[in-house]
This record gives sequence, C-alpha cells and structure tokens, in this order.
Amino acid sequence: MFHFPFRLLCRRPFHRRHLHSTTSQPLQLPLSHPIYLIWGSNTAVGKTLVSAGVAGSHLLSSPNLFHYIKPVQTGFPIDSDSRFVFNKVSELFLRRNPSFSLFASNLILNASGPASNATGETQGCGMEMSVLNWREEKKLMGKKNECSELICKTMYAWEEAVSPHLAAERESGTVKDSVVLETLQRCFRDVLEGGDGKGKSEVLCVVETAGGVASPGPSGSLQCDLYRPFRIPAILVGDGQLGGISGTISAYESLTLRGYDVVAIVLEDHGLLNEVSLMSYTRNKVPVLVVPPVPKDPSDDLMEWFEGSHDSFSTLKEIMLSAYYERVQKLHGMPRKARNIFWWPFTQHKLVPEGGITVIDSRCGENFAVFKGQNTEVIEPQFDACASWWTQGPNATLQTELARDMGYTTARFGHVMFPENVYEPALNCAEFLLEGAGKGWASRVYFSDNGSTAIEIALKMAFRKFSVDHGLIPDFDDTTNEQPVELMVLALKSSYHGDTLGAMEAQAASSYTGFLQQPWYTGRGLFLDPPTVFICNSTWTLSLPQGFHSGSFKDEHITFASRDEIFYEGRDKSELAQVYSSYISELFSRNRGLCIGALIMEPVIQAAGGMHMVDPLFQRVLVNECRKRKVPVIFDEVFTGFWRLGVETTVELINCMPDIACFGKLMTGGVIPLAATLATDAVFDSFVGDSKLTALLHGHSYSAHAMGCMAAAKSIKWFKDPCLNPNITSDGRLLRELWDARLVDQISSHPAVQRVVALGTLFALELKAEGQNAGYGSLYARSLLQDLRDDGIYMRPLGNVIYLMCGPCTSPETCNELLVKLYQRLEEFTQNTIEKYSEL
Amino acid sequence: MFHFPFRLLCRRPFHRRHLHSTTSQPLQLPLSHPIYLIWGSNTAVGKTLVSAGVAGSHLLSSPNLFHYIKPVQTGFPIDSDSRFVFNKVSELFLRRNPSFSLFASNLILNASGPASNATGETQGCGMEMSVLNWREEKKLMGKKNECSELICKTMYAWEEAVSPHLAAERESGTVKDSVVLETLQRCFRDVLEGGDGKGKSEVLCVVETAGGVASPGPSGSLQCDLYRPFRIPAILVGDGQLGGISGTISAYESLTLRGYDVVAIVLEDHGLLNEVSLMSYTRNKVPVLVVPPVPKDPSDDLMEWFEGSHDSFSTLKEIMLSAYYERVQKLHGMPRKARNIFWWPFTQHKLVPEGGITVIDSRCGENFAVFKGQNTEVIEPQFDACASWWTQGPNATLQTELARDMGYTTARFGHVMFPENVYEPALNCAEFLLEGAGKGWASRVYFSDNGSTAIEIALKMAFRKFSVDHGLIPDFDDTTNEQPVELMVLALKSSYHGDTLGAMEAQAASSYTGFLQQPWYTGRGLFLDPPTVFICNSTWTLSLPQGFHSGSFKDEHITFASRDEIFYEGRDKSELAQVYSSYISELFSRNRGLCIGALIMEPVIQAAGGMHMVDPLFQRVLVNECRKRKVPVIFDEVFTGFWRLGVETTVELINCMPDIACFGKLMTGGVIPLAATLATDAVFDSFVGDSKLTALLHGHSYSAHAMGCMAAAKSIKWFKDPCLNPNITSDGRLLRELWDARLVDQISSHPAVQRVVALGTLFALELKAEGQNAGYGSLYARSLLQDLRDDGIYMRPLGNVIYLMCGPCTSPETCNELLVKLYQRLEEFTQNTIEKYSEL
Repeated sequence: MFHFPFRLLCRRPFHRRHLHSTTSQPLQLPLSHPIYLIWGSNTAVGKTLVSAGVAGSHLLSSPNLFHYIKPVQTGFPIDSDSRFVFNKVSELFLRRNPSFSLFASNLILNASGPASNATGETQGCGMEMSVLNWREEKKLMGKKNECSELICKTMYAWEEAVSPHLAAERESGTVKDSVVLETLQRCFRDVLEGGDGKGKSEVLCVVETAGGVASPGPSGSLQCDLYRPFRIPAILVGDGQLGGISGTISAYESLTLRGYDVVAIVLEDHGLLNEVSLMSYTRNKVPVLVVPPVPKDPSDDLMEWFEGSHDSFSTLKEIMLSAYYERVQKLHGMPRKARNIFWWPFTQHKLVPEGGITVIDSRCGENFAVFKGQNTEVIEPQFDACASWWTQGPNATLQTELARDMGYTTARFGHVMFPENVYEPALNCAEFLLEGAGKGWASRVYFSDNGSTAIEIALKMAFRKFSVDHGLIPDFDDTTNEQPVELMVLALKSSYHGDTLGAMEAQAASSYTGFLQQPWYTGRGLFLDPPTVFICNSTWTLSLPQGFHSGSFKDEHITFASRDEIFYEGRDKSELAQVYSSYISELFSRNRGLCIGALIMEPVIQAAGGMHMVDPLFQRVLVNECRKRKVPVIFDEVFTGFWRLGVETTVELINCMPDIACFGKLMTGGVIPLAATLATDAVFDSFVGDSKLTALLHGHSYSAHAMGCMAAAKSIKWFKDPCLNPNITSDGRLLRELWDARLVDQISSHPAVQRVVALGTLFALELKAEGQNAGYGSLYARSLLQDLRDDGIYMRPLGNVIYLMCGPCTSPETCNELLVKLYQRLEEFTQNTIEKYSEL
Repeated sequence: MFHFPFRLLCRRPFHRRHLHSTTSQPLQLPLSHPIYLIWGSNTAVGKTLVSAGVAGSHLLSSPNLFHYIKPVQTGFPIDSDSRFVFNKVSELFLRRNPSFSLFASNLILNASGPASNATGETQGCGMEMSVLNWREEKKLMGKKNECSELICKTMYAWEEAVSPHLAAERESGTVKDSVVLETLQRCFRDVLEGGDGKGKSEVLCVVETAGGVASPGPSGSLQCDLYRPFRIPAILVGDGQLGGISGTISAYESLTLRGYDVVAIVLEDHGLLNEVSLMSYTRNKVPVLVVPPVPKDPSDDLMEWFEGSHDSFSTLKEIMLSAYYERVQKLHGMPRKARNIFWWPFTQHKLVPEGGITVIDSRCGENFAVFKGQNTEVIEPQFDACASWWTQGPNATLQTELARDMGYTTARFGHVMFPENVYEPALNCAEFLLEGAGKGWASRVYFSDNGSTAIEIALKMAFRKFSVDHGLIPDFDDTTNEQPVELMVLALKSSYHGDTLGAMEAQAASSYTGFLQQPWYTGRGLFLDPPTVFICNSTWTLSLPQGFHSGSFKDEHITFASRDEIFYEGRDKSELAQVYSSYISELFSRNRGLCIGALIMEPVIQAAGGMHMVDPLFQRVLVNECRKRKVPVIFDEVFTGFWRLGVETTVELINCMPDIACFGKLMTGGVIPLAATLATDAVFDSFVGDSKLTALLHGHSYSAHAMGCMAAAKSIKWFKDPCLNPNITSDGRLLRELWDARLVDQISSHPAVQRVVALGTLFALELKAEGQNAGYGSLYARSLLQDLRDDGIYMRPLGNVIYLMCGPCTSPETCNELLVKLYQRLEEFTQNTIEKYSEL
C-alpha cells in the first residue's frame, strides 16, 4: 500500500454536518482578492503544473498568500494535485531561496472509504464520504521574518483513477452539487478572512477542476455546469499537441456557452504553433501563453522546467491580477455610468441615488448575481422575485439549454424574414402554440415583438371581424379611408394592455394615460369596474363594485371556502351569475349608441393595474354576452399565459374561449422578446380577399424571428414536461401549489396587509395605505423592499402593491423561504411604521 | 521511399482551372441521397474506421453505391484515409463474400509538390498544389451480376503529418476555402449524377473531416467554419477514453454553435461508460453508439473488429438513412403546414400558392439556404436581397461570432430586468450608441423592442419637451388627465414610422391607415410633400412638388453632376434653400392655429413609403426652421441608421442634428429585435421631477434585454472596424461605394425604369407603371422577381418599387453580380411586357 505521508493533525468533524445539507446558503463569491478557476481542454494537459507555476510565481517574488483548492480529486492518494502543488512550490522555494520564509500546508478535507483506507492511517467508513482533515505542513525559513503562505486543499477525494462521477458511484454514493458548492464557498470564506488586512494583489486563489471542462463532477453534472453559480473567471489550459487547436477551441466554446469569461489560455509547446491559430481564433482578445515542453521522464523533478517557464507564469499571474482589477473597477464604476447615460423606463431618475442601483453581474436560473461593493466586495445571489419584470422562467438547467439553442439558432439562421417564408423554428413554435395555448379554438398564429404590438394586432383583427360580421364594409375591396363608424372596445377598469397608443386606447384612464404621459390618449372604450376576489384574513372574498348592488340581489358578503370554489364551473347556475348577466345586458342596452367592436380583457389577473384577481365567473359571463352580440373576444394573456397562473393558458381557468388571444413575456421562457396573436379561422377569413390591401398590413421586421421562435418552442415544451419540470402534475395541465397555504393565510391576516392573491407563480399583496401612500406613485413599500434585498430577494413594487414572482420550475421550498422572509420583514415594517407614526 | 501502390490512370487537368478560381458558383447541396459529414471530437478517435464501417454496412448488405470523400489529407501518402476505406471495404467484401460484385475505386485529385513526389511515380511542381488524379480500382466478382460500388476520393493531399494549415503553408501555399468548397461541390454533383435512377437509400455519401471539429483547414479557417455553407448533417465520432466525455461534449457544442445538426455520436468502448454521460447530456435526443475496442496491434487487419462492430455500424447506417428521410420529408411538408397555420404580416394569403412559399433551411452570411424540391431535391443559396426585410447585416464570420455571443449572453444573463439596474451588455451598448450614432448631441439612451415602439417613445419625449418649453404644463406636478391643447406633428408625406397606432398617427394617410386596416387612425399631423431626388437617365434629378413653384422661383429642371453634390453643404446658400425656407415659414404662418409639438422624419430615404430620397437640403432647412420655433426634432433612423445608407448615422449625410433619434433593425447586426431612442439632456430633463408620475411611463418587459444589447454592442463595433469590415474607408465614417456607377447609370436609363436610388447598401428602382400596376398593392413586379429568384436573388417588392439590399460588409463584387443579373432580367421583363401588350 502506498504510504501516505501526511500528518494527521485533527479530525474534528467540522464539515460533517454539511455533507448532506440541503438548506441552500447564498453562494457568495468574494471579490476582495482574485479567484480563478483552472480548466483543462482535456485531461492531462497540465492544469496542476500551471497552478503550481502561478503559485510559485506569486509566492516566491514577495511575501504573499496563495490558496490552491482542488474540489474533486480521483486516483487518490497516488494522485493528489494539492500535494503536488504543496511539494513543488516548496522545492522551488528551496531552489530559489528568497530572503523571506514560506509556510505551506496541504489539507485533505473529505475522502471516500477506499481513499481513506488507502492512506493507511485511517479506516474509511464504507460507502460514504468521510471527513478526513488530513493535514501536512512545512515551514521553510528565509533570512527575514516576512513569510509567504501556501494553503492547499483537496475538498473531496476518491481512490479510483476514473471520472469523479464513476468514482463517487463506486466508492461513496453521490455528493450533491449543492454540497460541493457549499464546501467551496467555505473555502472562499477562508480566502476572504485570511486576506483581511492584506493588499488585493497579495492574495491569489486558484480552484483547479478535474479532467476537461465538461467532465462530470461527483453527481454526474458537468463541471462547467456545477461551478456555474459562482461564475469564476477562467484560465484555460489548452492542448499544444496535434488536434489540440480543436480541443482547446471547443473547450473554450463550452465555457463561453455557460457564461464564463476566459481570461487567458496557456498551453505546452509541442512545436506545432497551436498558439498562433488560437490567437487568430480569439482575435487577440484572449492572451495565449506558451510554456516549454514538459520533460517526459517521470523521475524529473521539473525544477528546470519551472525555471524555464518562469516568465510565462509570471506573465500569467500579472494577467490574472490585472483582469481582476479591471473587473472590480468596472463593477464599481457601473452605477455612476448607468445613472449618467441610461434612461430607465417607469423610473423617476431623481429618486434613484447611485447607491440604489443594482449591478447585475449575471443570472443563474432564478437568481441574479449581484455585485456589492460597499464594505467587502462580493458577488451574491438575489432571488429575482420580479421574475425579471414578469418574463423570466428558466431554472439553471433550462438556461444552459437555451444558451446552446440560442447559439445554434444564430449560427443556423441569424434572422430570416418571415412573410411568405417558412423555417423550422417558426413552424415548430406556431405548431406548439396551436397545440397548447390555442388548443380547441385557434387556427392561426400572427407573430410580433411584444405584448403591446400583439394587442394592436388583436384589435385590428377584432375590428375587421366585427366590421365584416356587421356589414360595415359593404364593398370589401373598397380600401378608401372613409370611416363608416367609430369603433370602441369593451374593457375592464384597471386593465393594462401595453404602452403603445393603440393598446392604451383600449384601457381606462390612469396614471399612464394623462396629457403628461400620452397627449394623444382619448380612451376609446366602455370601461367596466369588475368584481374582484382576494384573500383577506385567511378567507377568499368577493368584492362587488357599486353598480352590481342594484335590483333584487342582496348585498351579501360573499366568501369562498377555497380558491378552487372560485373557479368552479357550477357557479354558472348561481344567482350571482344571473346578476352579472343582467348587469352586462343592461350595459349594452344603455350604450346602444356606441359601436362596441371588441371585448378585451386580461383573464383572471389584472397585473399592471395592481395584481387584481377578477372574478372568473364575471369574465365568463361577459364573454358569453359578447358572443351573443357577435362582438369578438380578445384575451390578453401576455402576462397571464404560460404558467404564470399555474396553467398554460387561462382558458383552463375561466373555462371559455376567445376569438383572439395575445401572448408574450414567458412564452420564450422569458429570455428574449417575441409575441404572438392567436386567432380563429373565422377571424383570419375576414382578411382573405383578392387584394393585398385587404390583408392585415401590420408587421415588424423581426416578426417570427428565429431565435425567439426557437426559445419559445423549447420553453413551451419544457415547462409542461413532467420529466423536466418537477412542478408539473402528471397530466401536464397544472402546476402544483407553490405557495404554502398556511403561510399565505398568515400573511393575509397580517395587520399591515389589505389583501393577498396567490395563484400559480404569483404571490401578491396590497399594503394597507392611505393618501399619498396608496397608488402607483407611492413610495410606501420602499423600505420594506430594501430590507428584503438584504435578505437576498429582489422585488419591485407597484406602488403599495408588492409581489413575489417565481418561475414555473421553482421549487415550493424556495417559495416557502421567500414567504417566510417576507413575513418576517412585514413584522418589522409594521413595527417601524407604528414607531414612525407614534413619533409624529 | 514509400512505394505508392496506385495506378496512374489519367492526368487530365480537369480541376486545375478551378484551383485558384474566384468566381463563386452557388454551392448546391443535393438532397437526392443522404450525405453526411464525419467529425471527430479529437484527432485519432476513429473517424476513418467509422467511415469504413458504414461503407461496409451499406455496400455488403445489398448492391448499393457509397461515396467516401476526404477533402483534406495530410501525412500523405503514408496516411491515406480514402485508401484505407478502399482497402478495408474490399477485404471485408472478400471475407463476407456476398452474392453480388463490388467495384471499388480510389482517386487522389490534387496533391502538394512533396506529396506528389512521395508517390514516387510523378514529379510535383514545387510549391503549388498540382492535379494528381491518381486512381486505383478493384473489381471483386460475386456470383451475380449486380454490383455494389465504392467511390473513394481524396481532394487535397499534403505530405507532412501536421495540421492542414501548416502542411499547406509549408508545401503548397494556401488553398482557398472557396476552392475547397467548389471541389467538394463537384464531388457532390458526381453523387447526384451517379445516383440518378437509383433509390434514395441505395446511395450514401460521407465526407470525412481532418482532425477535430475545430482543427484548421488548409487556409487556416476552422473546418467547422469552412464547411458551414453546406450545413451537412453531422456524425460525431466521440472519445471513449478518460476525459473523452468532456472532449465529445465540447466538440458537439462547437458544431451546435455553427448551426450543424448532429445526427448521431459514435465512440470506441474503453470501458468507462462515457456513452451514459453523453446520452444524459443530450437527453437521449441524439443516439450514442458504441463500437468495441480497436486492437492496438498495428499488424491486425481489423477484420475481426469490423465483424464485431457490424451491428453498431448497421444501426448507424439506419439512423443516417432515417434521419435523412425525416429531413427531406419535413422540408417537403413545410410549405403546406405554413400555409395552414401561419398568418404572415403584409401578406394576402389568397395570393400565395403553396409553391410560392420559400423554405429556408438556414442562412450563412448574406445568403439564405433554400430548399427546392420540385425536380431534384436540393438546398441552394439565394442572396437575401431584402436583407431580411431591412435588418440583416452580418457576413458569415460575424454570424459565427454573434452565435457565440448569443450563447454566452443567454448563459450569463438570460434576461434581467432593466429599471434601476445596470449590467454589462446594456451599458456597453448605450456607450457605443452615444459615442457613435448619438455623437455630438445625444446624452441618454431609452431602450425598447422595435422601431415602432421607439417612435412612440420619441413622440412622448418630444411632446413633453415641447409642453415644458411652451408652458403648457403650468404645474409640473399636476398629473391629471386634462388636455390643455391638441398636439400635432409636422411630418412628410410618404413617410412611414411604424405600425402601432401612435406611430401611424404621425404619418400621412396611406394604404396602411384606412378604416379597413386601422379604424382608429386619424392622422394627427401636418404632412408636407417633400422635394425628392433620384437618378433618371444617368442623371441625379430633383423633383419639386407643386407648392414650391410659387413666387419668384423659376420652375427649373434641376439636376446634379453627382450624388455628392446633393449632399454638399454649400447648397445652404443657394436660391433653392431660400425657397425651401420661405415655403416652411409660410406653412407655419398659415397653420398658426395648430399646435405642432414635434417634427418627425426619416432622414434622406423614406423607405416603406417607396424608397424615396428626399432632398437633404430641404430636410436641413426644415430642421432649422423647427428649431427656431422650439419644436423638438425627431429623426427616425430605424431604417436609415447603422450603415444602411453608407454612414453610421444620417446626421453625417444631412449635416444637422436632432433632439431625439430612433434606431432599430440593423442596430443589432439585424439578428435580434432591439430599438433605442436617443435624446439630449434637455429632453431628459423635462421628465425629471419629484414624482414617479412625471417620469416617462412607457416600457416593455424586455427593455434593454441582454442579448439584444450584446448583439448591438458587437455589431456597432464590428461594422465600423476597418480590420473587420473591408468596406469601411480608413477614417471609419463611410462605406466605400458598393454599387457600380456604370451599371447604376445603365439601369437608370432602361426604358422599363422610372427612377433609381443608390446609396450605401441600398439600390432601389421604380418600374414604370400605370393604373393598377402602380402603387403598394401592385403585383406588377412579380414575374421579374420570380425570375431573379431562379438566379439566386431573393427580393420582395414594394408594389412597383423593387430594391436590392446588401449588408454593410458585402463586397462590391457581389453587388455587381446582383446588378448584372437584375439588368439582364429587366431586359427580359421589358420584352415580355411588350409581347404581352402586343397580344392584347
């Protein structure tokens, strides 16, 4: 048996409790000092030599601190990269003999049973990873007291010299990705703490991966995916051999496809000038360094080689330091620059201080990675609870798949124009739309760029259909500009259909429509105040606007035993249904003079208007009444569609079908703009004629652009596949409940809370507020949301209405954590508000 | 010296003339029979074994035809993969001894001097590739007369066993990519012709690449880029060794990032179960096949191994055949499906027959790859002369770079919401916009999704600025809906600013605005008929509308010696400038009752209105007159910006600056929707206040989405970099002239042509037409454009106005070819029209 030369210093189980932990601590990446990931374009291309070379360069030039972390080691203890670095740097120190000292240590944190046993000094406990905490150290004295320090760590070690996922399977069961990341995070905390008081360039840390960039880690996840949440800048050790150009470029591309920044490429010189091709490939934007050929003789101590590589490693180290400085400096400078040149939508710039600007370094699944530079520089996750303003859907896995798809689609299509053409992503997307969101009623797909344009198109469709049905266009081929009648929409108050004028005209007057905002707004509609439902004091309650209280109907306080009851179809036979029906009939009679050419509404949830849930019974009755009068019905599902409310289309919730429906936002998974207006054949037919001038002459250059269609086709399928989305119930039509009922009730009973709505991926609440504190312009919720950002939750208010929004794949556990934190902060908020008022 | 065992059959130089040819023949890929590219995840992973295995499987089961093509061979003649396939299949034939016969041949087309010499039978001519046409053949007789045929070809061979680009450099100079592709195309023609009369599954062709997927070809271009124009489906030979999962996945991703479809992965079994990880990676969507370990003994004849691999190769062959069938079937079915479910914008569906639908399989740079299935099934390039409806810009190189960037950006950001946030792509994009298109005047960037939304935002900006400047909002914080005055725009007739209602209201009545199309259109503007310029009979000519002929100004026939003269600033002092100025002043006086709150115009070219070139002097005078009256000026550069007219911004052409300008289309390189409204600080300041309600409350969920900003940042830089865009003149501010002046003149003098405009990437002409043949609804140009599609040019008419549009990087040579073909077809068109009329 190989004699394991480490000294056993301690065996306290300080990592044990974390080995199978599931609570996810936020994964902070300190930026106080440079940290790099060392990747290989293949196995055995010299990653450890590069690590040791950089360590040597850093530690032997002046008294510095270097962390070497090997998260995953197989072939242990015969192979131990951390020991190699530990030994070689020590040998190099003795050879170079600088004036200062070196303290070096090497620590093996955890090992599989066989790997533990193989060390000869301990008994591994069978088929589990055990805490080893083997440690060896050396102090090499120089003339001066000053000291460099090398800290080497292996996080997890297995005995068999195979890919980590195989070794883990055979020796220890699987170590979860989250556990690897948490252990790494603790190592980073050591970097942060050990570097306290030291200059930025005095501390350097490298994390060396195992095998190639896409080699599986212990759980089987590819390492490039495994480490992605940290998005640590990368050094790629390339391949100087024949075929190495290809391997290096492909490895580079795999890293790029996961959002990594490759800071430098290093490769061994095999005389083939691979570096020339690589520099040409990167257009000289990534430095490519060459180190001399490595001696093949296994007995060579490599000291000569390290000496010969001195300049290369020194340059590499400088590149690593300067790229780090540049990154940190850029991150610090971004808020000021943004404030100077951006013009954010829906934002009063005067109210945004430089410190109030969030620097988003990246996102991974549902989390932003946010830079914080006030005290310690750090990048940390914040749950994107505004689901990137109502679009974002993918988890980390889907994000990676979409990245590959977006690359593929750009390469295959770029953009190709749509009219009279067909190409695969557009066709697939249209087919999926008709099989899913439009199932049972829609036959045609009209693509555009965003919800607002989709609505304008829908209105044009509806008006044409109405005009044809009601004989407003006697001569169909008469394309003159004469306006036979003034068409209006029937719409609901507090609805919001978009920001372009046509969409605005279809909504009631609001803060968005005044002369200050849109001087051309007139409001071309008849706008009804709809009955709404919400949870208050743990009970779903109906709120009936004034107009409905007339007649024989008693002004009862209507409540529901559950949310399901609200959607129950049997309500069609209720007295309330009759009341709704009469109300609408009367309305039509009263407004006989108006020409109502379309009904337009957001089914179930009116989002921008304040997250109001409209009584679905009312909407169903309204649809039926319009249909009786041959008024085309438009569903604005831009917000509500694609699982936002727990179903693919709200048709499943309100149980009636439109003639036209608009989709956007989550349709593409929420990563790229695309919208679609779906329509029936009857609507389509009203545009068919002999002249181009009767066609629907509305379009945008990027109509049905390939990338958007590809993302949509992928996401539509993904979200409803129970194998890919754990939230999908087996029949593929419903998301499981994401918001814990008990917590929802608790919040709805909170004294600060007016009302709550929880449905699908949406949890919204209205804070009790009066006067200036209420309404869209209110800043009332500001301090509450600021506190929640400190908790790692990024929210954005609609005045005194706030909401949590997750993706269709987000786990109920995560949603739970959000609610718990929200409740805690609500308590504090109330306390503070009481204090504030008692001070007055 | 190695004895070269080939028989020299013929040395006719049938390839010589093509070796350095530059005329680009359209690269047709026949789909009459399956053709596959064999890629390796590294060198020496067994590509040739797989090729031979598939060949054996195809040829020895029944009498079939197999083409093996090795475009690039180094290490020749010691290494010759085509000879290996030739030999092994013959040996396998003898071993299996089927009832039919086998005719096998191996041909080496071209070789470098040293490679020729090394054959020992010929003298290579020094440092150039020479035609070799070495051929060997075998006829192996079976009992029956039926015969399988194996045709092996090596296209280019070099002696040194290094990467092709090094071998080419050292032995023969470089073989251009276009030459490799043309030779390959000729080999495909042989496949097509040889397969004539044979069943689809009786002929199979594989093209085996050299080294890994991203190994350089002879010119230094990566092979995955080199072969991309054909986009042949791929078989990836993976790596079964330790590290092989990573190498295989990365190679797969490099192919994906170039738009290839990988149909299957094959790898040698090294006992590491790499196939399990690979199947998990592809989610079982790509079959992964394993072949037994290859004997290491070089003297092994591999016959046992081939026998042991029989099932795998047989399965692989079946996969190749069925994927081919599926592809062809899908392509055939697409037009019908499209016609059934798409609703194309600006398209009268009744006028689009199934045969009139273009199936776009992909695009590469400026060319569509179009499927034609009528006679022979084939994929062939068509120049996208509608530049994908006015957006498309990248050449093939930029497309590849954008693909990588889009993958990276999706992986790094997906989408993150914009307000109060900052992230790198948005910041970079905004900075580049202000340094370029907005240079000298703009300070703020407002992002939106398309030109139409950018215009609506611009109008809101202008109206607010005007209202503040003219005291229309006495109490700035009064956000009520009262409308103190009815604001209008000043705009030009024939202008087009988008399809949403707000944008439409700012344009004069047209086919797009009637009750049939947009019942809510009223036309909130004062619309001027502008003076235009165009080439007629080789001369730039001014056309002055009626209103200008009044007063002292003589109704001269004004012409210009050159286009530059039209843009000459000295014209400000001309009598015409005075006429323009008086005309506009009078107009303002006459309409004193109207409240004109903004000037909006497309500078220089009115695109959708019919490709009219407005006299820039008139536009400059108009801007100055508005400025005098404190009317904010909006430039709609959505079409005209970003090199469409040969300059980054039309400010450089018309020599005056706006207060607000809108950009879109080409801004992202034309691959993904994004728009920006740029504004001065003065405009921005009119929205700054204490309340959110005075902020600009217009926005879209995808505002400043990361992918769009990334594409824009990349393209903005790329297009103006003389190192990347060969059309950029040295000072980086002008494109060189793309349209040959002589040809332009010639076309402008053609009897069928009314007028011509050529500027930047745009060449437009109006066909002489009357009555129904004129105007937007006209189908007059249809037959002409159909003929041009047969020539490989894809155009789309604006009624009787047709245009050619290229990208900012397209070569003048390509533009020249387009003009030549257009001229030829114009001749025929006139001839046909004359004949048609004489028949009547």
